[in-house]
Amino acid sequence: MRPVAVVGIGKTPFGAFPARDLRSLAEEAIARCLEDAHAGPSQVEAFYLGNFAGPSFVGQSHLAPYVAAACGLTGIPATRFEAACASSGAAFHHGVLAVAAGIHDVVLVAGVEKMTSEISARVAQILASAGDLAGEIRAGATFPALFAMIARRHMHQYGTTREHLARVAVKNHANGAKNPLAHMRKEVTLETVLAARPVAEPLTVYDCSLISDGAAALLLAPLERAADFTSRPVRVLGVAQSSDRLALQEKEDITTFEAVKRAAKKAYQMAGVGPADIEFAEVHDCFTIAEIMAIEDLGFVAKGEGGPFTAAGSTAPGGRIPVNASGGLKSKGHPVGATGVAQICDLVEQLRGEAGERQLERHSLGLAQNLGGSGATAVVSILSS
Amino acid sequence: MRPVAVVGIGKTPFGAFPARDLRSLAEEAIARCLEDAHAGPSQVEAFYLGNFAGPSFVGQSHLAPYVAAACGLTGIPATRFEAACASSGAAFHHGVLAVAAGIHDVVLVAGVEKMTSEISARVAQILASAGDLAGEIRAGATFPALFAMIARRHMHQYGTTREHLARVAVKNHANGAKNPLAHMRKEVTLETVLAARPVAEPLTVYDCSLISDGAAALLLAPLERAADFTSRPVRVLGVAQSSDRLALQEKEDITTFEAVKRAAKKAYQMAGVGPADIEFAEVHDCFTIAEIMAIEDLGFVAKGEGGPFTAAGSTAPGGRIPVNASGGLKSKGHPVGATGVAQICDLVEQLRGEAGERQLERHSLGLAQNLGGSGATAVVSILSS
Repeated sequence: MRPVAVVGIGKTPFGAFPARDLRSLAEEAIARCLEDAHAGPSQVEAFYLGNFAGPSFVGQSHLAPYVAAACGLTGIPATRFEAACASSGAAFHHGVLAVAAGIHDVVLVAGVEKMTSEISARVAQILASAGDLAGEIRAGATFPALFAMIARRHMHQYGTTREHLARVAVKNHANGAKNPLAHMRKEVTLETVLAARPVAEPLTVYDCSLISDGAAALLLAPLERAADFTSRPVRVLGVAQSSDRLALQEKEDITTFEAVKRAAKKAYQMAGVGPADIEFAEVHDCFTIAEIMAIEDLGFVAKGEGGPFTAAGSTAPGGRIPVNASGGLKSKGHPVGATGVAQICDLVEQLRGEAGERQLERHSLGLAQNLGGSGATAVVSILSS
Repeated sequence: MRPVAVVGIGKTPFGAFPARDLRSLAEEAIARCLEDAHAGPSQVEAFYLGNFAGPSFVGQSHLAPYVAAACGLTGIPATRFEAACASSGAAFHHGVLAVAAGIHDVVLVAGVEKMTSEISARVAQILASAGDLAGEIRAGATFPALFAMIARRHMHQYGTTREHLARVAVKNHANGAKNPLAHMRKEVTLETVLAARPVAEPLTVYDCSLISDGAAALLLAPLERAADFTSRPVRVLGVAQSSDRLALQEKEDITTFEAVKRAAKKAYQMAGVGPADIEFAEVHDCFTIAEIMAIEDLGFVAKGEGGPFTAAGSTAPGGRIPVNASGGLKSKGHPVGATGVAQICDLVEQLRGEAGERQLERHSLGLAQNLGGSGATAVVSILSS
C-alpha cells in the first residue's frame, strides 16, 4: 500500500439554505476543492460520494453521476455510498484504499446532505430509518430517544452527570463560534444548557446536533504525486471502517460502540501510532453523550472517564487533547452525509496550520471519528502534516 | 493487480413475496452463497451491498450492517452502494477491485431489493428518482416514457421496428420459462406481445421488465486461494464502471449509452479480449429497446443492427451470441438492487456448466452489462471458466 495524501479540500457553509438545492451545495464544495488543489475535473479518475438520504430528503436518487456530471465529471466510476451518518466517512475509507492500493491515482471524495427541505418531524423519521426499523423504531424510538437511553446507562454505570454532558455543548459552541462556516456561531453557558428544553431526558436541545444543509469535498492522490497539486499535502496515515448490529437491544453494552473500538484499533495499527500520540480530534458528537463515549472508545481516556475529562477542560482548545475544535456536529452543524468528509477537511485545515482563530498549538497528528446510526458503522481516520 | 475468482454464488427466487422482508431475502441469498463456497461468515473480510431504494420501498436505511449482522457478519467494513439499477453492479465492481488490489482477500458482494411492498404507481415514482428529478421527472417523465422516447428515436434513426422489440421479449420469455428462479416462467408469442396493452408507446407491457423482490450474492477471493473454497472457480477477467449525465435532454444521442461504451472498452482492455470473443452475455433489458442498444453498445453488432440481429435469432440460445439465457430482467425479474449481482451469478452458472435446461453450448467466456437509470451508470464485467 502506497502513502496517500489529501491534496485539496472544499466546504460550503453549514446551515439552513432554503434557496439552495442538494446539487448546488455539492458543486460549490467540489469547485472549492478543485481550486484548492489546482486541479481540473479532467484529472479526476473516480468519484466517491457520501450521501445518507437524498432520495428521502429531496427525492433524487442516483446522486453520484447526478452531482458528478454537474461538476464536469463524466466517463468515470461515480458511486454513492450510504452508511447513515457515516456515509461520507465510508466514501473516504473506500477512496483512500483505492489510491493506496493503486486502483486510482486521483480520487474526488465528497459528502452532501440537504435536510432542511423537510419539517423536523419528517427529518426525525428519515433519520430514524438508520436505526432498526422493525425492532426499535416501530416501537417509538427516535435517535434522541436512543441516545438518551445510552446517556442514562452511561450515567448509571460510570457516574457521568448531566453537567458532564452540558460541558461538551458549552465547549463545542465556544469552538463553533470561531468557525466562519459553522451553522450556529453562538456561545452558550452551562446554565443555559442545563435549563434548556428537554428533547429526550436527560438530553436537552443543546445536547443534540443540528439539522443542516451542507457539503464538503477533498481530493486524494498518491503522496509521491502530491506536489503536482499542493505545497502542503496532508498524509492519510490510517483509515478503517467497521460495523455492528443496528439495534441497541442487540448490543451487549450500550455505553460503548464496538465498531468504533474495532475501527480505531485497525486505524492505529495502520498508522503505527496509539491514542496517546493523537494531538487533536474531530469526533462524532451527534449528541453530547456520543462525544464522551467517543473519547473513551478511541482510547484517549479509560472507559467511564470521558465526563470528568471533559469537565476538567482536557478536550478544550488548550487542553490535553482538543476535541472538535471546529465546533463539532453540535455547533458546526450535521448535514449527515457531509459530516465524515467535513471532519477530514477540518483536520486538514489544522494540520496545514490554516484554521484561523481555531488553530491549535499542537497540530501535526489528528484523528477523525465518524459514526453511523447508533454505532452500526464507524470510520476512524488518522492524518498527519 | 492479482487475478480474482468468484468462488460461490447464491440467489433467491425472483418474484412477489408478500410474506418476505428485505433482510430475509438477503439472508437467504447469502446463506446459499456461503454454503456454495463452503465458507463461514468468519472468513468474510468485507461486505459490499448493492441496494437501490430500501429506504423508500421498506423504510430501512443503513442496510449494509443491518443485513450483515443478520448473517453473522459484524466487525468488518459493511457498505451499501447505490447506483440506481446498477447498484449491485457497482458493489461488484468495487469488491472485485478490492480483492484484485490486495485490500481484502475474501469479500462478500450481495444485492437485494424488496419492491412489491408498494403499489405500482409508487414503485414508478421511486424508480423515477433515478432520473433527473428537476429536469425531466417533474415534467411528467417516467422510465417507461424515457425508454419509449429512446425506442422511437432508435426506430427513426436505424429502422428498428416494433417487431424487433417484440422479438427480444419473445426470446427472453422463452429463456425465462426454463429458469426455475425466474419471476415469470411463461412463453409468449410474437402476436401476444404486439397486441399487448401499451405502457408508453411503442412499448407494451411485454416490453417492460417486472417489479420483483429478490436477492443475489457471491463470494470473491484471489484466484490463488480459490481452491480453499471451490473446485470450479470462475475468473473475473475484467470489470469497469462508468458514468454519464442523468437526463436524456443532456445527452447528444439517446440511441446509445456512452457509459456502456466506455465501461465496455475498459473491461475489454482489462480482460484482453474483444466483443468477438464473447460467447454469451447477460445484458440489462429493463426494456426491450435496452437489450437492442446493449448489444450494439457492447460491440456485438454495428450500431443500428441490434434489431435485425435479434430478429434473425442470433441472440437466442443456439445463435451467434446468446443473450439473456437466464430470461433477463424481462422474464427472470428485476429487483433492481439485486440485478447486477444476479447477472454475475447467471454467468457463473453457465461458466460452471451448471445452468440445467438453460445451459449453452459455448460457455467459457461471458459478459454482463448492468445499467443504472437511463444510462448514467454502467458496469460491464467479463468472466471466464
